Amino acid sequence: MKVTVKVPATTANIGSGFDCLGLALPIYNEITVEETVMPGSGVEINIIQEVETYDTLSIPKDENNIVYKAIELLYNFVGQTASDMKITIKTDIPVTRGLGSSAAVIVGGLVAANELLGRPADEAVLLSIASEVEGHPDNVAPALLGGFCLASLEDDGSVSYSKIEWPEDWKLTVLIPDYELDTKIARSVLPEAISIQDAAFNVRKCAMLIDSVYRKDSEAMKKCLTDKLHQPYRERLIKGFAELKELLANKDDILGCVISGAGPTILVISKNNGFEKVESEVKQVFNDLNVACDIRTFDIENEGTTVI
Amino acid sequence: MKVTVKVPATTANIGSGFDCLGLALPIYNEITVEETVMPGSGVEINIIQEVETYDTLSIPKDENNIVYKAIELLYNFVGQTASDMKITIKTDIPVTRGLGSSAAVIVGGLVAANELLGRPADEAVLLSIASEVEGHPDNVAPALLGGFCLASLEDDGSVSYSKIEWPEDWKLTVLIPDYELDTKIARSVLPEAISIQDAAFNVRKCAMLIDSVYRKDSEAMKKCLTDKLHQPYRERLIKGFAELKELLANKDDILGCVISGAGPTILVISKNNGFEKVESEVKQVFNDLNVACDIRTFDIENEGTTVI
Repeated sequence: MKVTVKVPATTANIGSGFDCLGLALPIYNEITVEETVMPGSGVEINIIQEVETYDTLSIPKDENNIVYKAIELLYNFVGQTASDMKITIKTDIPVTRGLGSSAAVIVGGLVAANELLGRPADEAVLLSIASEVEGHPDNVAPALLGGFCLASLEDDGSVSYSKIEWPEDWKLTVLIPDYELDTKIARSVLPEAISIQDAAFNVRKCAMLIDSVYRKDSEAMKKCLTDKLHQPYRERLIKGFAELKELLANKDDILGCVISGAGPTILVISKNNGFEKVESEVKQVFNDLNVACDIRTFDIENEGTTVI
Repeated sequence: MKVTVKVPATTANIGSGFDCLGLALPIYNEITVEETVMPGSGVEINIIQEVETYDTLSIPKDENNIVYKAIELLYNFVGQTASDMKITIKTDIPVTRGLGSSAAVIVGGLVAANELLGRPADEAVLLSIASEVEGHPDNVAPALLGGFCLASLEDDGSVSYSKIEWPEDWKLTVLIPDYELDTKIARSVLPEAISIQDAAFNVRKCAMLIDSVYRKDSEAMKKCLTDKLHQPYRERLIKGFAELKELLANKDDILGCVISGAGPTILVISKNNGFEKVESEVKQVFNDLNVACDIRTFDIENEGTTVI
C-alpha cells in the first residue's frame, strides 16, 4: 500500500497579514508514503530533488524527520502507533526561500498517511496537526486547500480558516534569489514589543485587505500590502526589497510587493500584464546588487493537496 | 436658509477591530445649521437635550465648538470662509458613553453645511474632515454611511472605507450605564507598547471578523470578538464587563460582548432572541454591582446621515 500526493508551494504573510494569510502557487512537491512490507525495517526517508540546489545532508532521514513527526501525530489522533514506513519526497519547491517547502512536506505526508488509514481525519484535524508541527497555520492552510487562505491558530490548538476567492486577474510573481535565509534568523530580528499604533495599523490594513479581496478591488488592495509588524525589521535581510518597493510604488497595475513568508523570496502582486511592463527594471535592481534571481509569474493555484 | 439632518449613534472598536470598525444604531441626534440673517451676529450654538442627562455648560457655544470647527474646515476646503451661523443640536444620543455622540454632531454639522453650500464635498471629503476633527474614523464612517463600516485613516489624511452588509439576524444590545467615562481617561490607560504576539492576535482576529461578516457565519464570528489591544487595559474601568464576559461565554445565540468605543457602554451581539434569553441574568450582574443600566436591543441602522 502506498499513496502519492502533490502539494503546492505557498507564500505567507502577504503584507499586513502577518502569520495569518497565505496563498498557493503552482510549484509542487510530491510525497509518497508507503507501508513497509518487512516489519522492523524502520523509518526510511528519501529525498529526490528535481533540481539539485539544496544540501539535504542535514535533514533527518529517520523518526526525527518532521514529516514522520506529523504522521506520528495523526496515528496518535486515531489511537494507533506509527511504525515502519518509507517516505519519499520529490521536491521542486525551493528550500529555505520562504515558499512553504516545510509546510508542503508536512501537509503532503499527513494527507498521504490519512489516505492509507482510510481518511479518519478531516480537513480541520489535518490543519491542526500540520500547524502544531509547523508552528503557524498560514502556509499549511493554502498547502492543503489551495487558493488564498486566512487562518488562525486558536489557543486550543484548533485552526480557524477560510478560503476566499482570489480575483482571476491578480497575478503573482515570485522573485527567488540564489541565497538562503534561515527562518530562525528571520524570526530572531523581530522585536518583542511594538507600539500600539503600529499594531492598530496592521489590524486595519489586514481587515481592509480581506475586504479588498472580497470586493476584487485592486485600487483598495494597493493600500493594504504595507506592514509594520515584520517587514521593517526583516527588510535589511532581504536584498533588493527596499529598492524594489521604491521602484514599484505607484506603477500602473502593480498592487504591491511583499516579503514571501520570512523571505528571502519577494512576492509581487500585479494585474493584467502589470509585471511584464516592469520586469526589465526589476531585473536591473538585482543585477545592480549582484544577486542572481529566478523570476516566475503565475496565476494562483486553486487546487490544494491532491492524491495522484 | 437652514438645513436639518438626522445622524445615528455609533458603536466602535467591535472587539478585535480597534480604531477601524464601527456600526450605526437607531438612536439619533438632529443637527440644524442656519445661515444667520444678520451679518456680524457671530456663531451661536444651541444644545437641546431630549432627555436631560448631561451638563452642557462645559461645551463651547462659540467658534471653539467642534461642530463649528468641522464646518470651518469644510468652508476652507471649498475656498470660502465660514462666518456667522446658528447651529442647533438636538441630542438623544447619550454623551460620554462610547456611543459616538461627538462623531454624530461633527458629521451632522458637516452634512448640513455641505447642503447649504450646494454639496461641494463628496463622501470621502466629508469623512476625511470629520476624522481630522474626531481623531479617528471608526465612528464617523458609520455615522455618515450607516451600517457596519471598516475605515482606515491614511497618512495623507484621506480615509479608506468600506460598508459591509451586516447579517439581518444579528442583533445589537447596548448596555448603557449611568456613569460617564472620559475618552481621555480611557485612552490614557492604554500601554504604549504591546507584544508582537498580541498584535498578531488582533490582526488575524480582525481579518477573520471581516470574513465572518461577509459569510454571515455566526459560529466564526464568536471567535473574533476577543481583543488584546485595548479591552484588557480598559476592563477595570468598565463596571460589569468582566462578569458579563464570563456570563455570556458559550451561551447559545450570543456572539460576544465588547466595550463600545472607549466605554463605558457595553455592546452585546446576539442572534435571533439570544439576548432575551439571558436578559434577566445580565440585569442581575448590574444590580449586584449597584450600577443602573439602560438596556436596549436594536437591529443595525443601515441609513446614515439623512437630511430631514
